[in-house]
Amino acid sequence: MEKVAIGAIILAAGKGTRMKSKSPKVMVPLLGEPILYYPLKALSFVLSMDDVAVVVGWKREEVENYLKLSWPQVTPIPQEKQLGTGHAVQMASDWFSKYDHVLVMPGDVPLISGKTLKGLVDEHIKENNDCTFLAFCPPDIKGYGRVISSDNKVRIVEEKDATEEEKKVNLANTGIYVFKATSLAEALGSINNCNAQGEYYLTDVVELLSIKGKLVKVKVLDDSSEAKGINSPYQLAEVSETLRLKIIEGHLSNGVRLDDLVTSWIGPQVVIEPDVHIAPNVQIWGESVIREGSRIGSFSVLRNAQVGPLAVVKEHVILENSIVGEGATVGPFAYVREGSEIGEEAFVGKFVEVKKSRIGKKSKVPHHSYLGDAQVGSNTNIGAGTITCNYDGKKKNKTFIGNNCFIGSDTMLVAPVNIGDGAYTGAGSVITKDVPPGSLAIGRAKQKNIEGWLERREKRGEEA
Amino acid sequence: MEKVAIGAIILAAGKGTRMKSKSPKVMVPLLGEPILYYPLKALSFVLSMDDVAVVVGWKREEVENYLKLSWPQVTPIPQEKQLGTGHAVQMASDWFSKYDHVLVMPGDVPLISGKTLKGLVDEHIKENNDCTFLAFCPPDIKGYGRVISSDNKVRIVEEKDATEEEKKVNLANTGIYVFKATSLAEALGSINNCNAQGEYYLTDVVELLSIKGKLVKVKVLDDSSEAKGINSPYQLAEVSETLRLKIIEGHLSNGVRLDDLVTSWIGPQVVIEPDVHIAPNVQIWGESVIREGSRIGSFSVLRNAQVGPLAVVKEHVILENSIVGEGATVGPFAYVREGSEIGEEAFVGKFVEVKKSRIGKKSKVPHHSYLGDAQVGSNTNIGAGTITCNYDGKKKNKTFIGNNCFIGSDTMLVAPVNIGDGAYTGAGSVITKDVPPGSLAIGRAKQKNIEGWLERREKRGEEA
Amino acid sequence: MEKVAIGAIILAAGKGTRMKSKSPKVMVPLLGEPILYYPLKALSFVLSMDDVAVVVGWKREEVENYLKLSWPQVTPIPQEKQLGTGHAVQMASDWFSKYDHVLVMPGDVPLISGKTLKGLVDEHIKENNDCTFLAFCPPDIKGYGRVISSDNKVRIVEEKDATEEEKKVNLANTGIYVFKATSLAEALGSINNCNAQGEYYLTDVVELLSIKGKLVKVKVLDDSSEAKGINSPYQLAEVSETLRLKIIEGHLSNGVRLDDLVTSWIGPQVVIEPDVHIAPNVQIWGESVIREGSRIGSFSVLRNAQVGPLAVVKEHVILENSIVGEGATVGPFAYVREGSEIGEEAFVGKFVEVKKSRIGKKSKVPHHSYLGDAQVGSNTNIGAGTITCNYDGKKKNKTFIGNNCFIGSDTMLVAPVNIGDGAYTGAGSVITKDVPPGSLAIGRAKQKNIEGWLERREKRGEEA
Repeated sequence: MEKVAIGAIILAAGKGTRMKSKSPKVMVPLLGEPILYYPLKALSFVLSMDDVAVVVGWKREEVENYLKLSWPQVTPIPQEKQLGTGHAVQMASDWFSKYDHVLVMPGDVPLISGKTLKGLVDEHIKENNDCTFLAFCPPDIKGYGRVISSDNKVRIVEEKDATEEEKKVNLANTGIYVFKATSLAEALGSINNCNAQGEYYLTDVVELLSIKGKLVKVKVLDDSSEAKGINSPYQLAEVSETLRLKIIEGHLSNGVRLDDLVTSWIGPQVVIEPDVHIAPNVQIWGESVIREGSRIGSFSVLRNAQVGPLAVVKEHVILENSIVGEGATVGPFAYVREGSEIGEEAFVGKFVEVKKSRIGKKSKVPHHSYLGDAQVGSNTNIGAGTITCNYDGKKKNKTFIGNNCFIGSDTMLVAPVNIGDGAYTGAGSVITKDVPPGSLAIGRAKQKNIEGWLERREKRGEEA
Repeated sequence: MEKVAIGAIILAAGKGTRMKSKSPKVMVPLLGEPILYYPLKALSFVLSMDDVAVVVGWKREEVENYLKLSWPQVTPIPQEKQLGTGHAVQMASDWFSKYDHVLVMPGDVPLISGKTLKGLVDEHIKENNDCTFLAFCPPDIKGYGRVISSDNKVRIVEEKDATEEEKKVNLANTGIYVFKATSLAEALGSINNCNAQGEYYLTDVVELLSIKGKLVKVKVLDDSSEAKGINSPYQLAEVSETLRLKIIEGHLSNGVRLDDLVTSWIGPQVVIEPDVHIAPNVQIWGESVIREGSRIGSFSVLRNAQVGPLAVVKEHVILENSIVGEGATVGPFAYVREGSEIGEEAFVGKFVEVKKSRIGKKSKVPHHSYLGDAQVGSNTNIGAGTITCNYDGKKKNKTFIGNNCFIGSDTMLVAPVNIGDGAYTGAGSVITKDVPPGSLAIGRAKQKNIEGWLERREKRGEEA
Repeated sequence: MEKVAIGAIILAAGKGTRMKSKSPKVMVPLLGEPILYYPLKALSFVLSMDDVAVVVGWKREEVENYLKLSWPQVTPIPQEKQLGTGHAVQMASDWFSKYDHVLVMPGDVPLISGKTLKGLVDEHIKENNDCTFLAFCPPDIKGYGRVISSDNKVRIVEEKDATEEEKKVNLANTGIYVFKATSLAEALGSINNCNAQGEYYLTDVVELLSIKGKLVKVKVLDDSSEAKGINSPYQLAEVSETLRLKIIEGHLSNGVRLDDLVTSWIGPQVVIEPDVHIAPNVQIWGESVIREGSRIGSFSVLRNAQVGPLAVVKEHVILENSIVGEGATVGPFAYVREGSEIGEEAFVGKFVEVKKSRIGKKSKVPHHSYLGDAQVGSNTNIGAGTITCNYDGKKKNKTFIGNNCFIGSDTMLVAPVNIGDGAYTGAGSVITKDVPPGSLAIGRAKQKNIEGWLERREKRGEEA
């Protein structure tokens, strides 16, 4: 079989009014990624992302920014006015003229698999059809366009335009088509907007091709759930639950130990190695990677986190855009964020916040501390209540703490400041100047005991 | 149709022994409200609360207090001894004598809808019955009183008093009746307690009326789940789950984006506007109001909280009886309580507790602080570890902080104390006196570096 | 019936490759206990633990350590090479020679009940069988050994060795047998490893006995779910869910008020008294005991915790190996660990960590404190930000605080140190020396207000 050029167009210009969201529908998050992520991901199993275009319209800057950031090879194609699916594909006419075939699909069918799309394309090319499209038998046909076959002709009728007889047909259009590019271009020129919605329907292309005697083929989905679309917050919640379970089951079968099938939330891009133990009520989002033998405790949320092998993330921990080293321990009740790195076998403990900081190997920040814009060497102990005073009211400043240091409890490190290797600070000190290596820095008033104070105070109280 | 006077009586005197609770059954919380809230709420769709009485008995002070606080128009009627449902209604004889008709219902059927009660009352009045009561076909009849119709007569037989033949009948009494007041009063005078339980049954009134040839009508519930009662912790959990889902679905259909149908808990009085995003595992209770475009993060609990538009409540936040302004951010790991107010675009961050305090517009309390009985102006920054020392061992005192202030990290504000506009405090200072506007207040010892300290200490260690 | 001696052998030598765990399969936790806990617990309803042996093999130290710690009466029997179930029982030949009968069961069937085992043993002894074993009808027979009865003979055929005809039989072997000890010993001597896996099968013993005309009886399980084994993380999650619900329902029927059937996690050893209220998303593990009238808030985790009557554990609390006294309050956002004791009516509040410490009656630690290795008397108030500096870089030291003390906010208690009864400390003090009773200890610099500082700084800014 000769090599054929195939492109794909995702229709993502609609507002999605029923979602009642301020974002375009395809940008509404689903398990931490925009809905649009899922059809793009499915297409990536079929063709190069260079051959994918997304028709954008309502609040298109939001979609375009997402594409630029996450799918830079994909071409956005603007549709200024949303005049229907046929009109949307017309906007891409120039773009798809370079292909032999073109796949068209909606942006809001996140359950469709790459395997299904691949099967559709392969069948279309093999049979040399003018149009091959996916249909399915939904549990409830209400709201879907009906696929009507009669006299060797195929038509798709929107529900709003269907006769009572047509409404009884239980085969629904998925909105996913592969066309021969020339046939698509030709037919697009002939459709009109004489229908209940006053829109140019892509479905009319199918009917036109069929009437002209072109080869139009209906392929019925094996698993009808793949065609489930999202038109309301309720449907979003349903699709989310289906996807969530699919992802969970994938991790279980890879040897991840997940205590709870119901409350585990794992995003589609997350990588988890075998022999990881995940307690109930854990959320792992974004491009997180969890290495072998590590444990994630309940009520913890990880976003773009890298957790090294044999690391322990305890309960009530939030990790964001940060790295936890091999054998390190974090939490409970810890917040590690914005490009922090917790070294091997290091410990970040209770009621501790770490921001843009690096904690060296085997160093400990056991409790009640804030480390921001700080670098801490190895084998250093940070006492409870230690704070890097990194903000002077105008800008953020850095703190450097060496190896083998002992920072006393309640030490204020007024940045910028350097604590040399092996230096100590006394509890309750405010450190404003650098501390040379091996020195003890201390800054506090001497304790005075005023004896008999309580008795005198009580007497005064009686006199008053 | 002539205007008729109708009153309603809720029977709430029972102990609910199987609940094993120290509270009367109707006071056990269900989604954050006493069980009694639900029938009262349903009645409020049918008649004025001035026309509602609640028969109270076991630990009646608890029920009476709740009524006084939350339903002050409702009349409590004491039943000193709990001698049965008929006896309970007798206690209300004087009260209901002013009405033409009287609705009687149990206090432990929280799923009954206002619409159902309205339909029952309307039918009763339209048909001018002496008694109209609701029956239902439960999935499992065990434990329910059976509705027996024969020879144009209607009886209700308690399970304990039923014959084997009667037990086979699958129509159960809901305990919800509307009576013509005069017919009810007359029949109540004739019932006795000759039965298995030695109680005066209200069900006997139905039989008496029927025997006397009065018009007794049985109305069967469309949705049998509405009649589900609560007699055990297990039934409470079941009813709670039904109610929880009903509430969740209502919010979804209003355009609220709820990630998870399973772990979202929202009380019956909560108001949520469209385009609000609620992550998994959020609880919202009481009279909370969540405005458009705001987000509530996982593992957060809101009680009587008002969250302004576009506000962000991050993960692990507790808000109680407090207000969060438009565009403000709270959390993660924050506790805002007891009449606090977080201003527009203000930020209350990590490991921060705010009590009876007001944080002005755009002010920030980023981490590790306790603000109690404090007022903070706008554009002020509160350093990490700042504490309002509001308690002197005897009473609570207030702290005032002006606009554009910069409170250094670990500042102790010994209340009562005033910090003027634009004032600064040095990190680690204990502020016991007022600070004039534009001043820097500082109170700390000077840092000393003792060089070579580590080396000397180690030598001493070797000598020891 | 004469008293007979009966022993039991649990087979626990396998690796459980499909679990992909670094621990032996029976040591993988299930609701907080090793899988092996469950068959041991079930056996404890049938016989004395002195009469139980566990055959251990792969990473057997781990299993042996668990037995030593938690089931010291049980005898571990090593199987150096894992050559099959028959070989495993051979390893125990000496051990079981002292019994009349011996029960043999796998270590990975945690749902089997003590009642079922008791019924099996009783029937075996009563009927004086040579072998009585449990079979069941699984929902999906795939993977199980088939029980084949023909010509009055019984055989068990592993799936890998079964013919297509045998595979169709829908009666599966549970792997739970009772043997007459002499019959078992004799047959074990005759089995070989000529099969698909090259292993010595215990199932061959059954066939041998049957062929020799010994009495072999198949008993079919009433509740087939009891036989469910664990071979993969997915099956572990399924079994966990079944067990979790069974435990929850038990507590509900005892009068515990559990808000949520789905997210409540309670270990098998936990004791909860009636009228306890447990909010959604609570986990209670280990040997925890929760007394009457207490409440446990959402997102809290208890491990080996004792919570006294009428105590309140609020949201986001972790309690580990600690005691909470009658009427005490803990949380929200508190971590109490390692042998701590919170006294009657005491209060440990927000962002507080307590480790190896005792808090006396009615004492309060309201917020932002770390108490480690401390003893606090009664009626003492610990100010926000107080820290026991218990670690000097080498070892942990103790802090003693008396009754009726008032520790000012941000007090650093440099241990070892004693605070006498009725003593006060000033906010922001570092306490390095003992404080006599009734004294005020203070150690802080005097506050200076530098007026006009902001103005001068801004001028400098302009000049710069």
